[in-house]
Amino acid sequence: MTEFGSETLTALVKALSRLPGIGAKTAQRLALHLLRTRREDAEHLAHLLAAVREKVRFCRTCGAITEAVECAICTDRGRDREIICVVEQPQDLLILEKTKQFRGLYHVLHGVLSPIDGIGPEDLSLNALEDRVRSGEVRELIVATNPTVEGDTTAFYIAKSVAPYGVTVTRLARGLPVGGTLEFADDSTLARALERREQL
Amino acid sequence: MTEFGSETLTALVKALSRLPGIGAKTAQRLALHLLRTRREDAEHLAHLLAAVREKVRFCRTCGAITEAVECAICTDRGRDREIICVVEQPQDLLILEKTKQFRGLYHVLHGVLSPIDGIGPEDLSLNALEDRVRSGEVRELIVATNPTVEGDTTAFYIAKSVAPYGVTVTRLARGLPVGGTLEFADDSTLARALERREQL
Repeated sequence: MTEFGSETLTALVKALSRLPGIGAKTAQRLALHLLRTRREDAEHLAHLLAAVREKVRFCRTCGAITEAVECAICTDRGRDREIICVVEQPQDLLILEKTKQFRGLYHVLHGVLSPIDGIGPEDLSLNALEDRVRSGEVRELIVATNPTVEGDTTAFYIAKSVAPYGVTVTRLARGLPVGGTLEFADDSTLARALERREQL
Repeated sequence: MTEFGSETLTALVKALSRLPGIGAKTAQRLALHLLRTRREDAEHLAHLLAAVREKVRFCRTCGAITEAVECAICTDRGRDREIICVVEQPQDLLILEKTKQFRGLYHVLHGVLSPIDGIGPEDLSLNALEDRVRSGEVRELIVATNPTVEGDTTAFYIAKSVAPYGVTVTRLARGLPVGGTLEFADDSTLARALERREQL
């Protein structure tokens, strides 16, 4: 007899427990829930899991999540094109948008410089960022990487690489708890950090 | 622009956050992880989610999870057919099996009597249990429902309903923390509770 009396269920529990933050007991509880939930709900979730990989792509300009070639922010003519906010991950962009304090464009690095993890400049969209700055329209870069060692390193790297183009490079104000991540900051702390951003 | 820059991703986050114990932030983190994971892994998970509803059924005798008509325990001639352990949910059976202290058969109620939630005897597999006891082969019922008000009520209901057949009805020893659930008990506590089961 397989662990859960069903090979399929055992495989599902195993696949779920590989997800980040999902332990063995949570995986088991989720799998048994999915077994009892309405069939349409389980099928809907299965469909979305497959579809998300088909549909979702990253904006060719800024790297944000989109289903088009360019994202809704990059194509929005009402946004301030002279200011670019640089973030580590797509979710950071979403969190900043929720503050409604920023009307410029974004640039998603999809990571952060981390020699320990073997992540160098060529692994991030740093060249694309430099290209955008070189185009001449950009007046300010707000580097909103996380207030961690890696985030700071990346910010300094960016400041150095765009220095020849005479843009102002700022960093989010240290209202954020040092060592923390954007993901767990509340909207008002983030709004304040945006407002009091400091020049590098 | 939709919340996540993609309708599909937004729908996936929404579907994930409907799962038990998964909040909005966890759902977002899982969805973004699935976006970055290997395509085969996401497709595998999607496939399993759909397959689990097709493949998994409940044993016609005891109600345990199986992919066959009868489960591996009911069809195992090496198990003691004179003793049946009654549990609330399929996962309780799995937890008890892990103790390796029990060599009898099981009966899964798929719930517990709970007038507040409108769950009465007809919603559980209590008639099927009585039929099994009536068959005459059973000598003892170990009622391993959770040590909660509902679990106790169900245990007394079972004791009363099988009283005419002269079987011994026992309950797991109160080594279990009262008000807790089987799911979070450790193996040795459970093994001890099985060993010191008390007659009702």
